[in-house]
Amino acid sequence: MFARQRLLQTLVRPLSPTARVQNGLRFASSAPSGGFRSRPLVRRTLTAARWGSYLIASSAVGLVVITGAIFVHDAFTYTEAHVDRVPVSPLALHPEKGGPKNLPIAMSLVDDVEDEEYQKVAHKPRLVIVGGGWGAVSVLQSLHAGDYHVTVISPDTYTTFTPLLPSAAVGTVQPRSLVEPLRKIVARLHGHFIDAKAIDLEMHDKLLEIEANGQHMYLPYDKLVIACGSVSSTHGVPGLENCFQLKTIADARSIRRRVIDNFEAASLPTCDPEERKRLLSFVVCGGGPTGVEAAAEIYDLCQEDLMNYYPKLLRQQVSIHVIQSREHILNTYSEAIWKYAEAKFSRDGVNVITNARVKEVHPDKVIFTQKNPDGSLNTLEVPANFVLWSTGIAMNPFTQRVSNLLPNQVHKKAIEVDAQLRVKGAPAGEVYAIGDCATIETSILRYLMELVDQCDKNRDGKIDFEEWEDMATKIKQKMPMTEKHLDKIRELFELYDSDRDDSLTLNELTILLQEIGNKITALPATAQVASQQGKYLGTKLSKLARTQERRAGSSTTTPSILRDEDIAKPFKYAHLGSLAYIGNAAVFDLGKYSFMGGLVAMYAWRSVYWSEQVSMRTRALLMIDWVIRGVWGRDLSRL
Amino acid sequence: MFARQRLLQTLVRPLSPTARVQNGLRFASSAPSGGFRSRPLVRRTLTAARWGSYLIASSAVGLVVITGAIFVHDAFTYTEAHVDRVPVSPLALHPEKGGPKNLPIAMSLVDDVEDEEYQKVAHKPRLVIVGGGWGAVSVLQSLHAGDYHVTVISPDTYTTFTPLLPSAAVGTVQPRSLVEPLRKIVARLHGHFIDAKAIDLEMHDKLLEIEANGQHMYLPYDKLVIACGSVSSTHGVPGLENCFQLKTIADARSIRRRVIDNFEAASLPTCDPEERKRLLSFVVCGGGPTGVEAAAEIYDLCQEDLMNYYPKLLRQQVSIHVIQSREHILNTYSEAIWKYAEAKFSRDGVNVITNARVKEVHPDKVIFTQKNPDGSLNTLEVPANFVLWSTGIAMNPFTQRVSNLLPNQVHKKAIEVDAQLRVKGAPAGEVYAIGDCATIETSILRYLMELVDQCDKNRDGKIDFEEWEDMATKIKQKMPMTEKHLDKIRELFELYDSDRDDSLTLNELTILLQEIGNKITALPATAQVASQQGKYLGTKLSKLARTQERRAGSSTTTPSILRDEDIAKPFKYAHLGSLAYIGNAAVFDLGKYSFMGGLVAMYAWRSVYWSEQVSMRTRALLMIDWVIRGVWGRDLSRL
Repeated sequence: MFARQRLLQTLVRPLSPTARVQNGLRFASSAPSGGFRSRPLVRRTLTAARWGSYLIASSAVGLVVITGAIFVHDAFTYTEAHVDRVPVSPLALHPEKGGPKNLPIAMSLVDDVEDEEYQKVAHKPRLVIVGGGWGAVSVLQSLHAGDYHVTVISPDTYTTFTPLLPSAAVGTVQPRSLVEPLRKIVARLHGHFIDAKAIDLEMHDKLLEIEANGQHMYLPYDKLVIACGSVSSTHGVPGLENCFQLKTIADARSIRRRVIDNFEAASLPTCDPEERKRLLSFVVCGGGPTGVEAAAEIYDLCQEDLMNYYPKLLRQQVSIHVIQSREHILNTYSEAIWKYAEAKFSRDGVNVITNARVKEVHPDKVIFTQKNPDGSLNTLEVPANFVLWSTGIAMNPFTQRVSNLLPNQVHKKAIEVDAQLRVKGAPAGEVYAIGDCATIETSILRYLMELVDQCDKNRDGKIDFEEWEDMATKIKQKMPMTEKHLDKIRELFELYDSDRDDSLTLNELTILLQEIGNKITALPATAQVASQQGKYLGTKLSKLARTQERRAGSSTTTPSILRDEDIAKPFKYAHLGSLAYIGNAAVFDLGKYSFMGGLVAMYAWRSVYWSEQVSMRTRALLMIDWVIRGVWGRDLSRL
Repeated sequence: MFARQRLLQTLVRPLSPTARVQNGLRFASSAPSGGFRSRPLVRRTLTAARWGSYLIASSAVGLVVITGAIFVHDAFTYTEAHVDRVPVSPLALHPEKGGPKNLPIAMSLVDDVEDEEYQKVAHKPRLVIVGGGWGAVSVLQSLHAGDYHVTVISPDTYTTFTPLLPSAAVGTVQPRSLVEPLRKIVARLHGHFIDAKAIDLEMHDKLLEIEANGQHMYLPYDKLVIACGSVSSTHGVPGLENCFQLKTIADARSIRRRVIDNFEAASLPTCDPEERKRLLSFVVCGGGPTGVEAAAEIYDLCQEDLMNYYPKLLRQQVSIHVIQSREHILNTYSEAIWKYAEAKFSRDGVNVITNARVKEVHPDKVIFTQKNPDGSLNTLEVPANFVLWSTGIAMNPFTQRVSNLLPNQVHKKAIEVDAQLRVKGAPAGEVYAIGDCATIETSILRYLMELVDQCDKNRDGKIDFEEWEDMATKIKQKMPMTEKHLDKIRELFELYDSDRDDSLTLNELTILLQEIGNKITALPATAQVASQQGKYLGTKLSKLARTQERRAGSSTTTPSILRDEDIAKPFKYAHLGSLAYIGNAAVFDLGKYSFMGGLVAMYAWRSVYWSEQVSMRTRALLMIDWVIRGVWGRDLSRL
C-alpha cells in the first residue's frame, strides 16, 4: 500500500510543477521582452525537468498503450469455433501389418488428409527424424515446407535449450522457459510428431520400429535422420546411480529439489553439525562448461538468495567442489580463459580439484585419486549429498542397436558417418546421423585404393607430385576436416618421400595418410556442432528433393537417382567460439580472441543465448525470468 | 529479421512526417496571417496524427525507459557479500532430549540468535503453526512482527493459490505462478520455517511431535494453530486410486501430464478407434466449483490449443463429462447461476450428468447410478482415461490423531472448535484449529446449564421473557452463527412456550435450543472461510500478546492469564460471494446479486483472484501467464 502510494507520487509529482512552469514561460514570452539574466539557467533546468517529466509521462502512457493493446488482442483469442466432420484415411485408423516382425505399418497418419496443406505433402518422400534436440530442430528449421512428408519421433514432446539447464537447476530461469513443443515446430512443415521411442531399424525394408504407448509399430521412411543424442558415459566408475546428470528438464528439476532439500534438512535443529556440512557440500564431477556453469549457478544461489531466507550458518558452511581430470578446468578453452575462471573460483571459495579422477561415488561421499607432482596417486574423499556427473558421452540403446546392425561400425561412442553425414554401411542416401550420436570418420586410409585409382594417371603404381596435388584436393573435398593438415603439400610430399625418388610409393602414401588421420580430432559433442550439422542436412535434403522433382518433371527419360555428392559439398564445421558462465561473470573463447569479465560479459553471454532461442515465446519467457530474478530473487519453492 | 524491420518502420515512420508538419506549422504562424479555410480541418487531422505519433513515441520511449531501469536495477542485484562468523546457540546444534517419547526438543532454532531481529523475538511466547495453506498464511499476514516466536511446520516449502489449480492443470497459468515460498512469508515476522510433517501432540507438556528428514523431534509451543487442511473423502467409493485430485501443485502437474499423454496416445496410427474415444473422454466427479472449473479449463484447452497442433479428429472426438450427485451443478450458488452454467456447458457440448452417484472407478471407466424421475436407479458407465475426483473432505492423519486424543471430539470430518476457534477439549487458549481441518460447533445445547445459571436471575428454574432476551444476546455473542435464527425472539419465545405460562421451562428451552442448533449449518470448506479465520486468529493472537505484555509491564501484582473472551469477540464469517470460471465466461454469486457473462466476467474473475494473491511476485507472474497465453497459446509441453 505504502509502496503503491510512493510510486503514484513519483509519477505525479514531477508533472504538476512542470506544467505550472510551462504556463509561466508561455506568459513570459508573450510579454514584452525584459532583461532576464538567469533565464538561460532557468531554461536549462526547465528543459531537464521537461525532459524528465516527458520520460516519465511517456513511460506511463507507453505502459497504458501496451497494456491496452494486450487486452484488446487477448480478447480476440477466445474462440467458439466448431469442428465438423474430419476426413481421415481408413488406413490411418486400421493400419496393415507387415515387415519382418509383422507389426502394424503406419503408412498413413491420422492427420494426413485432414486439410489441403497436409494432403499436399502426403505423397512426398517420407523423411523421419529420430530425436528432438539441437540437431533435429535444426534440420526442421532449415527444411523448406512442402518438400517432404516429415515425421518426428521423440519420447519428449518438446525440444530443450540445453545450454541454460544449469541456470534452470537453481531457479535462475524456469525450466518451462527452455522448452518449445515439437508439434509447434513441425507445424510449419505440415509435419507430424509421434510421442515414441525408436527401437530398431529394418534398413532393407526402410522401416523404423518404434514403441509408442506400449505398442510396437513400423514407420516407413525414404530418408531417416538419427539425431537422438547420447547418454552419459560412466567411465567405469561405480555408484553413478548416486549422481545427478544435467541433460534434460527432468534432471534440472530433480537437482533443484535436491538442493532445496539439502538446505531444508541443514536448517533442522536435530541436524548433526558434521551431517550439516555434508548436506551443504556440493560436488561437480567434470570441469567442462556444464560442470563449471553448474558450480557457478549453485554459488550464485547461495550468495544471492540462500543468505536472505535460510539461517546464515548455512551460507557459512556451504562448500562447492569441482573435480577435473585434467590440469585445468575449461581445458578446451584458451589459457587466458581457464586462468580467469580458476582465479574467479578461487576468489569465490569454490574448491577446484584438478588432476583428479573420480573412483567411486557413494550416497554420502565421493572417492577420488589425485596425481601428485611426482606422479604418485593420493586417494582422497569428499563428503557430499549432491553429486553432479557431467563428463563424457555414450551410445543410447537405439544408436547402439544401429551400430550393431552394421559390421563396419566400430566406433565405441557414436555412429560413424561420412563427410556427407551418411551412416557408414547403410544404403547410401537413406540413413543420416547428426549431433552427439554421430561422429564423422577421421580415417583417410580406407579410401587409399580408391584415391590411387583416381589419381595415378600414368598407372605406374606410384604418385608423383602432380598426382599428389590432385589427390590432396580430392581428400580435402571428401573430408574437409583434413584441410589444415594438408595446406603444405610440397613439404608433406618431401617429408614422406623417404627414398627421395620424387614420388610416393603405396607404402609411403599409407604412412602419410595414416599420420594425417591421427591428427584429425573428432568434432566435440556440442550444441554448436549438432546445430550446424542439422542446418547442413536440412538444406541438403530440401535441395535433393527439389532437384529430383525438377528432373522428374523436365526430362523425358527416367531420372537417375541423385547422389548427395552431386548437389552438396561435404559438411564443414565452422567453430564460432565457446562461452561459459562463471558466476556473475562470463568467458568467451572466439578462437583468435578471448573475452572475459564481470557483469558486462554476463549480459553478453545472456544475449548470445537469447538470440539462439528456438522461438520468440521462449525469448520472452527467458527475458521475464531474468527480470523476475532481478526483482524478487530466485524462486526457492521446492517443486 | 523481417518482423524486426517492420517494427522499426512502424516506430519511425509516423514520427518523421509529423516532425516536418510541425516545422511547417511554426512557419505558418510566424508568417502574416492569411485566409486559410481548410486550416481547422488540417489542424484536426494533424492533431490526431500528432496524438497518434505521440502515443507510439511514448510507448517506445516508455519501453526504453522501463527496460533501462530494469537493467540498472538488475546490475545491482549481484552481490559479492561475504559471511563471517555466525553466532549460534549451542542448544540449537545439540538439542536436549525429553518429553514422553524421549525425543530431541527443539528449544532453540539455528537462526534464533544470529542477528538482532531474531534475538528480539527469541524469548517471546512460541507460536507454532501447522500447515502452509490459506488459513496459516492468513494468520502469518495478520500477526504483528515481534509479538511471537513464530514457527511454521509444513511438508511443502511454499503456499499455493489453490483457486487457480484448475487453470494450472491445463497450462493456462504456470504452477510456479501460484506459489510463494513460506520462508519469504515468515521472514517479515523474523519467524522460522521447518520442512516437516506434524505427527503427534503432547498437550500436557505443550510439545508438538514432528518428523523432518526421517527424524522425529519435539517442538515446544505456547500457542498451537492447526491449519493443515484436509484430504479428499472417498465416500466409500472403490477405485479412487484411479482418480486424480486437484489439491496441490503436484496434482495439477500430473493432470497436465495425463492430459497431454492422452492426446499423444490418441494421435497414434495404431490407436484403435474405440480406444481413441476412451482416451479422449474426460470425467469429472463432483459438480462444485473445482469440478466445474476443471471441466471448463479442459474444454478451453481443446477449443483453443488442441485444435491447432493435434489432428483435428481428436477435437471432434473429445468428450467431457461432469457427474454431479445433486440436481444441478454449482448447486450452492444461486439459481440464475447454475442455470447459466448448465446452459453454457450444454452449448459447449460438455455432458452434465446430474442426480448421479459414482459407484466404482476402474482404470478404464467410471460406473455410476443415476436416479430416474420415478426414483428408480439406473446403473450406467462411461469409458475414461482421466477421472478427476473433487468432492468431499476428510481428516488427514494428524488431525485424526488430535481428534482421537480428545474424548469430546466426535465430528467425523474435522476438529471441532468453539466460536473463538479453540480446539474443544484442549487446554483453553493453547490449541486452535482453522480452515478445512476445523469445524465450528453448532450445538448450543451443551451450554444449556451454563446459560440458565447465568440468566435465571430470580432462580425460579424457569426463564421469563426478560431473562430470555438476555439469554438470546449471550447465545449470539457466544455463537455468531445463531444470529439470523435468533432475530425474532418474541415469536420464538411464544412458539416454544407450549404451556403458555409466559416462561420457558428447562424442557421447553432444551427443545428450542436443539432446534436452533439443527438449523445452523457448518461453514463450507473454502479458501474464503480459512482466510477469514486466519485473519481473525492472527489479529487476536497479536492483541493477546500485546495486552499480556502491557499488563506484565504496568501492574505490580502478578498478571492474571488473559482469556480470549476478554479481548476478542467470537469469530464471525462474512460471506463475500462465490465465483466460478465456466469456460471464457464466469459467474459471481454475491448473495443478493448474481453476475454472469462472457469475457468481461472472465476478466473480472481474473481480477478478483489477481488481487487476492499473496505477493506482488505471483501477481506479476500470473499477469505474464495470461498475456503469454493470449500471444502464444497454452504451453503444450508435457513436463
